[in-house]
Amino acid sequence: MSISSNVSRLLRKQVRPIELPKRWTHSVAVIGAPLSKGQKKRGVEHGPAAIRNAGLFERLSKIGCSVYDVGDLKFSHVPNDALYNNTVKHPRTVGLACQVVADAVSTAIGTGHTCITLGGDHSLALGSISGHAQQCPDLCVIWVDAHADINTPLTSKSGSLHGQPVSFLLRELQDKVPPIPGFSWTKPCLSRADIVYIGLRDLDPAEQFILKKYNITYYSMRHIDCIGINKVMERTTDLLLGRRQRPIHLSFDIDAFDPMLAPATGTPVMGGLTYREGLYITEEIHNTGMLSAMDLVEVNPLLGATSDEVKATASLAVDVITSCMGRTREGDHIIVDELPTPCNIYESNGEEQVRI
Amino acid sequence: MSISSNVSRLLRKQVRPIELPKRWTHSVAVIGAPLSKGQKKRGVEHGPAAIRNAGLFERLSKIGCSVYDVGDLKFSHVPNDALYNNTVKHPRTVGLACQVVADAVSTAIGTGHTCITLGGDHSLALGSISGHAQQCPDLCVIWVDAHADINTPLTSKSGSLHGQPVSFLLRELQDKVPPIPGFSWTKPCLSRADIVYIGLRDLDPAEQFILKKYNITYYSMRHIDCIGINKVMERTTDLLLGRRQRPIHLSFDIDAFDPMLAPATGTPVMGGLTYREGLYITEEIHNTGMLSAMDLVEVNPLLGATSDEVKATASLAVDVITSCMGRTREGDHIIVDELPTPCNIYESNGEEQVRI
Amino acid sequence: MSISSNVSRLLRKQVRPIELPKRWTHSVAVIGAPLSKGQKKRGVEHGPAAIRNAGLFERLSKIGCSVYDVGDLKFSHVPNDALYNNTVKHPRTVGLACQVVADAVSTAIGTGHTCITLGGDHSLALGSISGHAQQCPDLCVIWVDAHADINTPLTSKSGSLHGQPVSFLLRELQDKVPPIPGFSWTKPCLSRADIVYIGLRDLDPAEQFILKKYNITYYSMRHIDCIGINKVMERTTDLLLGRRQRPIHLSFDIDAFDPMLAPATGTPVMGGLTYREGLYITEEIHNTGMLSAMDLVEVNPLLGATSDEVKATASLAVDVITSCMGRTREGDHIIVDELPTPCNIYESNGEEQVRI
Repeated sequence: MSISSNVSRLLRKQVRPIELPKRWTHSVAVIGAPLSKGQKKRGVEHGPAAIRNAGLFERLSKIGCSVYDVGDLKFSHVPNDALYNNTVKHPRTVGLACQVVADAVSTAIGTGHTCITLGGDHSLALGSISGHAQQCPDLCVIWVDAHADINTPLTSKSGSLHGQPVSFLLRELQDKVPPIPGFSWTKPCLSRADIVYIGLRDLDPAEQFILKKYNITYYSMRHIDCIGINKVMERTTDLLLGRRQRPIHLSFDIDAFDPMLAPATGTPVMGGLTYREGLYITEEIHNTGMLSAMDLVEVNPLLGATSDEVKATASLAVDVITSCMGRTREGDHIIVDELPTPCNIYESNGEEQVRI
Repeated sequence: MSISSNVSRLLRKQVRPIELPKRWTHSVAVIGAPLSKGQKKRGVEHGPAAIRNAGLFERLSKIGCSVYDVGDLKFSHVPNDALYNNTVKHPRTVGLACQVVADAVSTAIGTGHTCITLGGDHSLALGSISGHAQQCPDLCVIWVDAHADINTPLTSKSGSLHGQPVSFLLRELQDKVPPIPGFSWTKPCLSRADIVYIGLRDLDPAEQFILKKYNITYYSMRHIDCIGINKVMERTTDLLLGRRQRPIHLSFDIDAFDPMLAPATGTPVMGGLTYREGLYITEEIHNTGMLSAMDLVEVNPLLGATSDEVKATASLAVDVITSCMGRTREGDHIIVDELPTPCNIYESNGEEQVRI
Repeated sequence: MSISSNVSRLLRKQVRPIELPKRWTHSVAVIGAPLSKGQKKRGVEHGPAAIRNAGLFERLSKIGCSVYDVGDLKFSHVPNDALYNNTVKHPRTVGLACQVVADAVSTAIGTGHTCITLGGDHSLALGSISGHAQQCPDLCVIWVDAHADINTPLTSKSGSLHGQPVSFLLRELQDKVPPIPGFSWTKPCLSRADIVYIGLRDLDPAEQFILKKYNITYYSMRHIDCIGINKVMERTTDLLLGRRQRPIHLSFDIDAFDPMLAPATGTPVMGGLTYREGLYITEEIHNTGMLSAMDLVEVNPLLGATSDEVKATASLAVDVITSCMGRTREGDHIIVDELPTPCNIYESNGEEQVRI
């Protein structure tokens, strides 16, 4: 054995193994929810696969998460469910699927995991938030989205349920929400002060009315332009966590981002979040230490113009999720607490002897 | 008739028809000004058609504007007008065209319309602002542009009149502007305190000198980087409208935007406005309630590298115009003032009877 | 000779020749440093040529700089230098090259030039800063980069020296830096308070530890998101120049920019500086009047996906350099101090007589 390799070993010895910090390390359950009947476009059911293929698990492991893959949930196809009462599309299919999601999320959180639900369309949030609330009745919601998804079945023009989940969740709105087949299991679990929106830029008139009338806090892109994303996050966490610490449910629609960054989605709207604003939001949420469950929805791999666009969108989803789980832009979630120092042998022997 | 359709009708009845608010609704006149001789590149004369084809009228109608299409103005070609005195290009052609624009704008405003002039090159603003001033002598101007367009015929290096319109308009500069054929009809209608620039990032030395010497307020991209677009708009409206309400003329050159957003234009300059900054500007101008006329200029459909680039540029122009006319990112300009409530029949009969 | 041309001459006469201001005008030396062995990817040795071909010299001349081209430095290839001690790659090749760079930079600054070193990979900054410090021992450094490049040879995982130059430069770190062949000539010339980082977003765990332990000031992308680039620059110049005026060395890695703007580089990281933020940084540095030398590194023309991407990256490098040397977004570095006025003949004779 050469001196060189001896030195090398000595040097290496002094390098303390990297350590995963105890606090912050997430034990994560990942649930695929390939739900697509909450909207009209084919392909969003392939969202979970696209996000997995973009390296989600490797990236989560790299930042020290232990990951439990629940796999993709199976949803039943309910026959004769195309249109209910001329107003709501696929209610039983979507309602039952949300119930399945709720059960899975409740189980994951009940067994001590931070729960990540991969969409699928945004109607699934009715399920994930309901399931989360079964375990954590005092949760609050941060909804990051270009859209408010707060139409009632009576105000929606499209009839698509992915534009309505919040109306089913809010207690204040229940006298406006008719009974819909498939949704009898739901119980509103949020009050108006339990949710904050970020990123809105395409509101239906009725949605705008609801937000104003019920005094729901939202930060539209215009607000972000006006006060900056740092103030938005400061106010959001103050509002939701200012009085008491409680679990956060983050429901993140990839269309919150600008279409230049997230083109492979069903309802893109110009003028969205920058990459940096998106990460700032998720970093701040992670920093609260209170993130308990999250949805990442509306990645639709059939809607990118090129495979690069699809890859960019899915990769962005992975960046959002890993940032929520502790990845930072100032170094990943792995800690070094001492620097290696050149040892004596190395110093005294100098260059010549250790030359390879 | 089934119970279901009965219920449907009852439900529908309770949905109040959406209402257009009285205040803010613009009665809009759209003037095409296919002027191109104020600069050198072929194609800008097709700007009005490109903007119309991008859905301008449908979009204006959708936000509640009543639209009167004046059509495209006809401009005379003046022979032997290529170069005047080795300094000014096509003076008579441009001068006469501006006079035609001035008449059209004056008529449109005189008959109670908010006037939108579609360019064409930016020399037309000499016409539109002059025509606007005939009706509203106390107007002020917000000039959104990468360039100041304030060269005099004696400082311009290119001789192109689209870089000079402001010099003809400012009272303080008249001893520096020689008499030019085609421009004897013009009367300076602005003082230095009546105009604010936003978005500047490519100034000729003489322009920089003029802005400083005459103490003209401008917010360059550097200023926007420094204080943010919200402060820029606050100061702009304070300066122009702080003491008295008066009509605003917005002269918007599409090259104020970053070339990534507006590539199909004649003199793109890196580092321009983001989409969101552009909309913030126009939303704030709309919110003053004082917008009386606007130009949208320098869309050149022959200059995009691809048809997508041309479409994006024209579509951006439409977004700017509709935002000026009341479109917001927090819901279009249509108001709902009551939510539909599920009626008794519906509630008591429940799911089964209304199933389709 | 016609009256017209007479008039023209008279008019022209009154146009004062543009003048280059005395203060600020840089006498610039440009050094090409085609160093590539500090990292693994082929092509970065063509960086200097790409930046020159993007019009560097024309652009520098245009803003009034006198430019002295030192040409590209020649670096020796040291045989049997692939890997030292299983930790450091190509140490002798890189170390000797840095020594050559140091000599060239020292000479350029010693002869009164502002020195611009074109990379090549970022390991060259060990040379350029050392050479600069030979002439200006009290210099300070602004390091604009996605990466901190502050690994020691013992913490680096890649072994690439372009991720380590700062560790050789900092006095505080010398007990952590082993003697490496090729680097015996180096002397640490900076203390922790002499350097500020801007743009960081991809730190190794050991780097993060070093920045914290030694209390080195850095503004990551997250900080920029939080306080804005204007505050970042205000604090940077306060920290470095607040107590005393001293020479600035700017070490600018093109990967500080977002990969959308600078794709042709070896280690791109999402979420970088915008074009406008980059220029704001360089404008502020120029405005201190203390810029004495700069590096522009890591442009790799073999790594763009298309020739447009390569051109964009090289052109961005030129924009950065010219902005450092005085180009502004509010007019280039050339001053006009009087406006031409129409002369009497011109005014009294009017249009007809001067018509061509």
